[in-house]
Amino acid sequence: MSTARVLFTPSGRQGDVAVGTSVLDAARGLGVDLDSICGGRGICGRCQVQLGSSKSIPLDPSRISPPGPTELDYKGKRPLEPGHRLGCAARILDDVVIDIPTTSQIHRQVVRKRADVPNIAIDPVVRLYYVEVSEAALGEQDSDQRRLLTSLQEQWDLSELRIDPRALPEMQESLIVGKSHVTAAVRDRLVVAIWPGFRDISLGVAFDVGSTTIAGHLCDLLTGQILASHGEMNPQIRFGEDVMSRVSYAMMNEGGARDLTEAVRSALDGAVGALVDQGGVARSDVLELTLVGNPIMHHLFLGLDPTPLGAAPFSLAVDEAVEIEAIEIGINAHPRSRAYVLPCIAGHVGADAAAAVLSEAPHQNEAVTLLVDVGTNAEIVLGNSRRLLAASSPTGPAFEGAQISSGQRAAPGAIERVRIDPATLEPRIKIVGGEHWSDEEGFADEAAHTPITGICGSGIIEAIGELFLAGVIAGDGQIRDLPNSRIISSDRTFSFVLWDTPEILITQDDVRSIQLAKAALQAGARLLMDHFETDTVDQVRLAGAFGTHIDPKYAMVLGMIPDCDLNQVSGAGNAAGAGAIIALLSNSKRREIEDLVDRVEKIETATEPRFQEHFVASLAIPHETAPYPHLRSTVSIPDPSPTAGGRRRRRERRPEHD
Amino acid sequence: MSTARVLFTPSGRQGDVAVGTSVLDAARGLGVDLDSICGGRGICGRCQVQLGSSKSIPLDPSRISPPGPTELDYKGKRPLEPGHRLGCAARILDDVVIDIPTTSQIHRQVVRKRADVPNIAIDPVVRLYYVEVSEAALGEQDSDQRRLLTSLQEQWDLSELRIDPRALPEMQESLIVGKSHVTAAVRDRLVVAIWPGFRDISLGVAFDVGSTTIAGHLCDLLTGQILASHGEMNPQIRFGEDVMSRVSYAMMNEGGARDLTEAVRSALDGAVGALVDQGGVARSDVLELTLVGNPIMHHLFLGLDPTPLGAAPFSLAVDEAVEIEAIEIGINAHPRSRAYVLPCIAGHVGADAAAAVLSEAPHQNEAVTLLVDVGTNAEIVLGNSRRLLAASSPTGPAFEGAQISSGQRAAPGAIERVRIDPATLEPRIKIVGGEHWSDEEGFADEAAHTPITGICGSGIIEAIGELFLAGVIAGDGQIRDLPNSRIISSDRTFSFVLWDTPEILITQDDVRSIQLAKAALQAGARLLMDHFETDTVDQVRLAGAFGTHIDPKYAMVLGMIPDCDLNQVSGAGNAAGAGAIIALLSNSKRREIEDLVDRVEKIETATEPRFQEHFVASLAIPHETAPYPHLRSTVSIPDPSPTAGGRRRRRERRPEHD
Repeated sequence: MSTARVLFTPSGRQGDVAVGTSVLDAARGLGVDLDSICGGRGICGRCQVQLGSSKSIPLDPSRISPPGPTELDYKGKRPLEPGHRLGCAARILDDVVIDIPTTSQIHRQVVRKRADVPNIAIDPVVRLYYVEVSEAALGEQDSDQRRLLTSLQEQWDLSELRIDPRALPEMQESLIVGKSHVTAAVRDRLVVAIWPGFRDISLGVAFDVGSTTIAGHLCDLLTGQILASHGEMNPQIRFGEDVMSRVSYAMMNEGGARDLTEAVRSALDGAVGALVDQGGVARSDVLELTLVGNPIMHHLFLGLDPTPLGAAPFSLAVDEAVEIEAIEIGINAHPRSRAYVLPCIAGHVGADAAAAVLSEAPHQNEAVTLLVDVGTNAEIVLGNSRRLLAASSPTGPAFEGAQISSGQRAAPGAIERVRIDPATLEPRIKIVGGEHWSDEEGFADEAAHTPITGICGSGIIEAIGELFLAGVIAGDGQIRDLPNSRIISSDRTFSFVLWDTPEILITQDDVRSIQLAKAALQAGARLLMDHFETDTVDQVRLAGAFGTHIDPKYAMVLGMIPDCDLNQVSGAGNAAGAGAIIALLSNSKRREIEDLVDRVEKIETATEPRFQEHFVASLAIPHETAPYPHLRSTVSIPDPSPTAGGRRRRRERRPEHD
Repeated sequence: MSTARVLFTPSGRQGDVAVGTSVLDAARGLGVDLDSICGGRGICGRCQVQLGSSKSIPLDPSRISPPGPTELDYKGKRPLEPGHRLGCAARILDDVVIDIPTTSQIHRQVVRKRADVPNIAIDPVVRLYYVEVSEAALGEQDSDQRRLLTSLQEQWDLSELRIDPRALPEMQESLIVGKSHVTAAVRDRLVVAIWPGFRDISLGVAFDVGSTTIAGHLCDLLTGQILASHGEMNPQIRFGEDVMSRVSYAMMNEGGARDLTEAVRSALDGAVGALVDQGGVARSDVLELTLVGNPIMHHLFLGLDPTPLGAAPFSLAVDEAVEIEAIEIGINAHPRSRAYVLPCIAGHVGADAAAAVLSEAPHQNEAVTLLVDVGTNAEIVLGNSRRLLAASSPTGPAFEGAQISSGQRAAPGAIERVRIDPATLEPRIKIVGGEHWSDEEGFADEAAHTPITGICGSGIIEAIGELFLAGVIAGDGQIRDLPNSRIISSDRTFSFVLWDTPEILITQDDVRSIQLAKAALQAGARLLMDHFETDTVDQVRLAGAFGTHIDPKYAMVLGMIPDCDLNQVSGAGNAAGAGAIIALLSNSKRREIEDLVDRVEKIETATEPRFQEHFVASLAIPHETAPYPHLRSTVSIPDPSPTAGGRRRRRERRPEHD
C-alpha cells in the first residue's frame, strides 16, 4: 500500500495516509479539527477545504482527486465556495497540504462584531449527527433503538448513548419517513431529538433576566452567530420597581411569589416567540437555553421563594448551576430543550455576576480587576488569576433612580447627562433617546417629541458630580446656600433647580441618598481589597445598563469606586448577557464557571465590622480615605469656599429662617 | 476504651464495639441489615431488635442499657413490639447477642399469601431518608441544597447525590415548614422528593397491561405488602377484540394509534385513582410504577406506533427496558414518579413474557421449563439455568374465543368447562362465574341469573378435547357423522350441538381454528426444543388468564403442548403481573431481567423452515410426531372407529347429501 504525506494547516498536524484516503478521513485519523454533520456523505458541505502549499510541497491540484459526481452535483445547504473542495469527496493522491478554513473547523473561534461579546471557541452542549441506519431485517431482532445507537457508534464513534424515552415515538417515525436516514441531536450522551433525513438547524437562546429588562439572544449553535436579539421590560415591574419591593410583594401577598414567577416566565416564553419570529425559525428549533439573573430573579424564574433573600442569613435555595427542562419553567421551545442556569456566587451575588465573570474573565488576567454590577444590591468581584473574591453591597435603589425626588428609570424623557457651568451654575442636559444637549439646536424638537419626565441614575450621578465640581455641593454632601437663583431653600435645606419646566430638583435628600449608595459600593470594594491585601486596583469594569451609561469620571468624582487610572475604568456593557451567550455556545465554559464559582472567596459584608468602617469613611465626596491621585490629575477638586456667583433666586415656598 | 463483643442473629455477623455504642450504630459498622428511616432518632420504629443468646453469651437484659426517655415516651407510627427495643436507643454495655426480626431487616423477604407472587427480597429503587439539616447561618453562604446534600452525606453516607431541579421549590419550603428536618426520597442518586419532617409513606403501582384486562397492584415499597388490587377491561377493546384487530385499526384510521394510546393511558391513570382510593392514600404517595405488556400493548402505552409489529420484519421500536416519567405516559402520581417498563424479549415476545420469566425464574432451575403465555401470539420461553430461548408463535385469536362460531371472551355467561359422556354424547357444562355443573342443582338458578352467551377459550379446548376422547372428532380433526341427535350436518360438514338454548355449536370450522392455533403453539415449542436439543421438557407453565383456566389435561389431549408428566403441567397464574410487582419492589431484579433478556436466544419462527414442518406435523390430535406416553397413561385415546351410539337427530336445515 503506497502512502502519501498530508500536512493540515493552520493546525500544522501531519502524517502519512494510504493513497486514496479522503481528506475528511485523513483529518479524523490525525485528530484534525474538520467539521461534518453528514459524516462524509457529501450532504452538509461543512468539510470544505482548500489546497495549500509548503516549502517542500507545491500547490498542485493533481495531488488530490478531481471533482467527481458528489462535488459536481453538490446541492447542499452550505454552498461550495470557489476554490474549495469537499473534504469527504476529495481523495489524497500524493503529498499534499490541506488548508482548513475557519468556517470548516469544529471548534472555530466566533468573531464578534459587538465589542461586548468576546470571541470564544464554540463547543455546544447539543450536537447534530446524521446517520444512515441499517434497515431492519427479519430474524435479526434488533429494535429501532438498537440499530440507531449502533449506527451512531459505528459512524460517529459515540458510545454509551441513550435515547430520551420521550423521543422514541419520533425516532420510530423519523426512521420510516427518512428511510432509515436520520439526524440525531445528542446532549450529554442522551439522544434528545431525531429528525428524518439530513438536518443542520440547531439553535439556542441566551437570556439575561434583569430586574428591569429581559434581554434574549437567539444563537446558531453550529456557527455561534447571533441570529436575533430581543429586549423587553421585565413585567414584574408592576409588582415593584426594584427587586426588594418585589420581595416585599412576595412576602406580603398570598401567592405573591407565584405571581412574580408567572410574570417572568411568561415574559421569557414570549421573548422566545419574538426571537424565533425575528429569526424566521420555529420554537422547536431551539434545543438549548441559558439563563442568568441576580439571585432574586434567579429564584423567581426557577419558581423558588425569594423571601429568604430579603433577610439574614440571606439563604439561597440553590447556588450551584441548575439544568432543568425548559418547559418546566414555562418556556416552550423544543419539547426536550433544556435550560442551563449559571451558578450563583453568593447570597446577593447572582448568576448574572457569574456570567459577567465568565465574560470579563478577570481570572485569566494578572492585573487586578474590580468588576461591579450595580443594582439594588451591587455585585462586586475583585481579583485576578490568583484569587477571586466576591461580595454584595446594599446600595439600595438610588442608582436606579428610585428614592430620588425626581428620579425615574432610564427611559425616554429621563435626563441622563448633565453639565453645569461652574461660573453661572447654568445647567445643560441630555435626555435618554435624545442626541442634543439642551443648548444645541434640535433639543427643543426632541423635548417636544419626548417630554422631560425626570432624572435617571446616570443623570443624578453626573448632576451631583458637576455640582460638587462647581462647588455647589460641599465635600460632606451639603448643598451650599449660594447666591444663585438655581439654589432654592426649603425646610432648612437647599435644592438645586436643574430644570424649570417640568421642575427637576436636586434636593439635599437626593444627595444623601446617592452618598449612602456610593458609600456602600465603595465600602464593598474596599472590603474585598482588604481581603485581597491590595490598596489599588488595575482596572475597574462597570457592568450592566447603569455601568454602561455612567461616565467613569463622575463615578470617581463621587467616590463610587476606588482610585484607578481613568483610562482603566470602563463600562463592560451587558457582561451578564455576554456570559449567558458564552455558556450557551460552550460546554467547557460551563465547567469553567462552575469550578471558578466554587473557588471564589465569598465575603459577607453584613458580618464584617470593617465594612461599616469603610462605609462611614466613604460617605464624603469623593471620600476621605482615598487620595484619588488619578482623579486629581483629571478634574480640579474645588476648595471648600463658595466659588460660583450669579443671581440668587428665592422661591416663595422657601420659609424664612436665620 | 473498653469494648464489648456483639453477635447479630440471624446474619451471624459479629465484632467488637466500644461500650456505649448504640445497637443501630454497631449494626451499621458491621454491615448488618438493620432498617431505619429516621437515622437513629427514635422516630420511625424500624430498628426494633430483641435480645438473644448464644452458647457463650447468656440472655441478660443488663447487657444493654435500660429503656430511657426515647423508648419510654416512644410514640412512632410503628408500635414498639413487646420485648423489643429500639436499636437506635439501646446501647451495648457488655458482650451481647442481638436478634434482628424480619420486620426490621432492610432487605427482608416478603412472604406472600398468594401463590403466584413469589417471595423476594425487597430492594426498592426509591428509598426514604430522614435528615436533620443544619440551619442556615449568616456568613456561611451555604445554599439550602448544599446543606441538605451535606446532611444526607453525613447522616446517611450518601455521596454524589443531586436534587431534581423540579424538587427545589419543595425542598425550600420543606426546610422552612419542617424547621430543617425533612425526609428525602432518593432514586438513583437523585433526590426526587422532599417532605417536611418525618415521613414513612412510599408506594408503588405495578401494572400488567393485557389486551383484555389491565391489572394493577398498589404496593408499599417499604414493606413489600400489596395494599390494593384493581382490574378492569382494557378500553382498547372498543377498537378491536384482539391485538391484531387493534393494529389494523391503527393502520386503517388516521390517528388510530393515538386513539389506542389515549385509551390505554387513560385507563392506567384511572386505575391509579381506583387503587389509591381503595388504599386510602393519595396519588402523590405513589413514587414508582412498573408496567408490562405484550409488544403491542407496550408500544401503545409508550405512544409508539404498533403497525410495524403487524408485518415483517416485526420491528420493535425499542426492546430495552424504558424508564420514563409517569406523567409522560399520562399517569398522574407523584409529579416525579417514574414508570419502569420491563424489556421486551423479541418482536412478539414482550415485556409481559420478560415479567413472567422474572416471576417463574426458569433460569434459576436445572429442570427444563416450557413457559407459555397464550394470546393472539403465543409467547414461548424454554430453558433452564444454562440457556433460555424464546419465540412467538402466531396462534391467532382462537384460544381467546375469537374466530369460533359461538366464541366469546371469558366473561360471565361464557361456557368454560365441558364434559361429554362418551356413551351418550350428553354434555355437561359450567359457566364463568358459576359454581355448578349443568347437571347439578343450582345450575338453573345460575343460568337464569347469568344467561349463557357463548363459549370461551378454555371451554372450546375442553369441548374439543372431550369430543376427541368420545370419538366424535377424529385424529385428523374431522367431526364424524355419528348417529346421535347432537351431531348435525350443514354444507357437507358436521357440527356438535353443545347446548340447545341458546344454541351453542362446535362446528367443523371451530375445530379447524383450534387445530391451527394449537399446531402453531406446539410447533413453536418444538422449534425451541430443537434449538435446545431436547425431546422432552421437565415442566410446563401456562401463564396468563387462559393458562390459569385451561385444564392441563385437555391442553395435552389436543396436543397444544409437548408431552410432559401431567403433574408438571400447571397454570402460572398472572406470572406477568407477579413479575411487574417483583420489578417494582426490587431494583436488583430489574438488572437481573435486563441482563437475562439480553442473553435470551431469540428464535424467529417466520424464518425457520422447521417451524413449518412442525406446524404441519402438529395439526392432528393429539399429533403425529409425539408418542405422548404421559398422556396415554392418563386418558384413553380412542381408536378411529365410531364408538358412541345414541339417537341421531337431524336438523331441518341439514342439506341432503350422499
